[in-house]
Amino acid sequence: MASTDLHYATIAELGALFRRRTLSPVELTETLLARIEKLEPTLRAFVTVTADRARADARAAEAAFQRGGDPGPLAGIPVAYKDLYATKGILTTAGSAVLASWVPDADSTCVARLQNAGCVMLGKLITHEFAFGIQFPGHRFPPARNPWNLDHIPGGSSSGSGAALAAGLCVGSLGSDTGGSIRGPAAFSGIAGIKPTYGRCSRAGVVSLSWTLDHTGPMARTVEDCAYLLQALGGHDSADPASSRAPVGDYLASLREGVRGLRVGVPRAYFFEGVTGETERAFEASLGVLRGLGARVEDVEIPSIQASMAFMVILLAEAFAYHERDLREKPELFGDVLREKLLAGGLLTAGEYTQAQRLRAQICADMAAALARVDVLATPTTPGPAPSFKTVLDPDFPFARSNMAPFNMAGLPALAVPCGFSEAGLPLSLQIAGRPFDEATVLRVGHAYEQATDWHRRRPGV
Amino acid sequence: MASTDLHYATIAELGALFRRRTLSPVELTETLLARIEKLEPTLRAFVTVTADRARADARAAEAAFQRGGDPGPLAGIPVAYKDLYATKGILTTAGSAVLASWVPDADSTCVARLQNAGCVMLGKLITHEFAFGIQFPGHRFPPARNPWNLDHIPGGSSSGSGAALAAGLCVGSLGSDTGGSIRGPAAFSGIAGIKPTYGRCSRAGVVSLSWTLDHTGPMARTVEDCAYLLQALGGHDSADPASSRAPVGDYLASLREGVRGLRVGVPRAYFFEGVTGETERAFEASLGVLRGLGARVEDVEIPSIQASMAFMVILLAEAFAYHERDLREKPELFGDVLREKLLAGGLLTAGEYTQAQRLRAQICADMAAALARVDVLATPTTPGPAPSFKTVLDPDFPFARSNMAPFNMAGLPALAVPCGFSEAGLPLSLQIAGRPFDEATVLRVGHAYEQATDWHRRRPGV
Repeated sequence: MASTDLHYATIAELGALFRRRTLSPVELTETLLARIEKLEPTLRAFVTVTADRARADARAAEAAFQRGGDPGPLAGIPVAYKDLYATKGILTTAGSAVLASWVPDADSTCVARLQNAGCVMLGKLITHEFAFGIQFPGHRFPPARNPWNLDHIPGGSSSGSGAALAAGLCVGSLGSDTGGSIRGPAAFSGIAGIKPTYGRCSRAGVVSLSWTLDHTGPMARTVEDCAYLLQALGGHDSADPASSRAPVGDYLASLREGVRGLRVGVPRAYFFEGVTGETERAFEASLGVLRGLGARVEDVEIPSIQASMAFMVILLAEAFAYHERDLREKPELFGDVLREKLLAGGLLTAGEYTQAQRLRAQICADMAAALARVDVLATPTTPGPAPSFKTVLDPDFPFARSNMAPFNMAGLPALAVPCGFSEAGLPLSLQIAGRPFDEATVLRVGHAYEQATDWHRRRPGV
Repeated sequence: MASTDLHYATIAELGALFRRRTLSPVELTETLLARIEKLEPTLRAFVTVTADRARADARAAEAAFQRGGDPGPLAGIPVAYKDLYATKGILTTAGSAVLASWVPDADSTCVARLQNAGCVMLGKLITHEFAFGIQFPGHRFPPARNPWNLDHIPGGSSSGSGAALAAGLCVGSLGSDTGGSIRGPAAFSGIAGIKPTYGRCSRAGVVSLSWTLDHTGPMARTVEDCAYLLQALGGHDSADPASSRAPVGDYLASLREGVRGLRVGVPRAYFFEGVTGETERAFEASLGVLRGLGARVEDVEIPSIQASMAFMVILLAEAFAYHERDLREKPELFGDVLREKLLAGGLLTAGEYTQAQRLRAQICADMAAALARVDVLATPTTPGPAPSFKTVLDPDFPFARSNMAPFNMAGLPALAVPCGFSEAGLPLSLQIAGRPFDEATVLRVGHAYEQATDWHRRRPGV
């Protein structure tokens, strides 16, 4: 591997180099810190670069390799965390002026798990204000830019994670996903990201947006790298009341199984409304790839899917409840648009909220029925490629229906994987969702698709 | 057994008589139908007596015994169902004028499971209007009376179930429990009842009061009889979105294990506020019995327990959402007091509701922490014995805090078992709660206590 490609290497490639002593974690970290320094003024992916911490982590990883034995697949792997994750002794803003000077005294569980696995912390990544995944005008934090086209958004709310991974500024990242905030930035930035099952990864120490919809999970450039990260992240955490004790799969082993005979269901209603022609063509081509690999593709119905719109009622009500005290005591610290949205959540009635939850139960039941007949569901991740800043900042920009939010409603694992490019050169993405706690099959389908295609190997021109 | 005692026999005793051909299910059913006819004008426990159905069921059970083989422990056992459970072809009113002429076209899952197990359906039992467990004045259905003292309530909302079991009108029953509607009538009527873990028993086909708090479960005169019924009731049902796939224990086997070495935790805060002296003395004596059986009793703390008061916010919001359309379209069919309560639920905000759910998560976490140190929790089931009708119909009657609702908030299994009598001769009750899906241990403690005491063998003078 040419040293110029180091910043786009995978976790497995880097691990092999570390083990052969061809590369040291310290050397890799310096390479990435230099690249961050060079590109950050353009991309604005980071809130905080923790260079000293990164160097210390890298030296510790280097020492671990020098001691011999196997320090594990994540030792020395440079990562950066969405600034929604509490990091001990390191500023954690959640993209908000409310937390402009918050320095947590403990790591969030997910950060602790990756650090304990030997990861090198490069810094904290831009998130939209309190992870509300829309780029509002007038926000005090400058937005991250999309490495594929600097005039376009990288997606949100894990925007820094998407931009940093696409530009080769880190190898892995943590995002959070309430209605698509892992999968959207993955789709718009041309990388991979998985929202695991509700309860699979801990939310302890992660600033909440909507606690029955919030999920934490990994983002990386390949499905395999997501699998490595999820393997370290998954598992019960008593500090998160919603955390599950369901057993964690062997995700890496499952990647080797291929997809022959697997049934892939395509829910045609809802998920194709407003989808651009090039997105639809890329999606149909990806179904062809899966068929070629031996998967059986068939249409499925999710009768209640239109009720997914109830998603926003749940999100706004829960977000209001979470932020209520700050909204009353320091409303000026919220961006104008976010504050208005949250206050609107305060006007919802408990009846409306519980009706939304009842619709949600129906969606869960219908998804379960569909997933009794097929192993995974496949849809376009987003209706089209990343829009430009100009477009989304236009007050008339329609708030598009989400192809991702239904899987937050149902709590099912859902993966975004690159599946093509628009004529303008922006990434397109395939979404694969599966049964509760069956991340293994979701990752397996995504990996098989990725191995058969080259989309994830393309690089932006930054 | 003298034939005069037949109506107070246990499931195991009756099964032995059936198997020895000493008693036929038809003979038993006729005995109970005659007793119902005699006592019903006084007790008013039934909405509908299904005598023809009972005779048909009994003949089927008799035929099963005559065919040889083992038709199972519930074959020929006469039961009656709270009128909240849908019964195919049989009026199901839920105690409401809204459903005054509802004849369901399918059985609720719980009813179907007991009927499939060979139970004999004697009829449908009085419930408070839509299972809201307070006896409101002016209600169109007359209330059931407490067999221990006809001037006192039998508890609610499963009031008919409590009264019928205490008076020997049926052997088993189904209740529902949103904030204590199984355990309260069990306590006030001197019988046993278990609210299983949330998700253990199906709610499909049961009229909802508050879907995140509603539980279905068995009521009977002994813990062992509850175990027989729960064994048939428990297990996954795809028709209830909240139904769990957790494995069902072997409840009867667990009863034989005794309680030596088991840790019993007593949460002193909250659960003893407003408790009468005689209730407290009976409770302390019951701890002595458990100690004598080899259990280790210790105090435990549940720091967030006072937040249990958020229970009513959740109940009212969800009850409003469920009844919203009928409240708008036919408000006159609701009792005045219930309608006002439900409309108040409609004024709650989504923020208030979600704050209540967040408090609930804290209670769940604190209960889990307590149950990591002890095997079960023990409290008085109610603060005192059954109040009189005159007392509860007084508009100034205080709405007492509930010792039962915290276990609906936490979704934990909780059993009520008789533990003494007041000076006025009214039953007192011990509540035993346990870990999620550990009904086996809860029943085991209750059974050991019952075997060591005689409270459950006392009979009212009706």
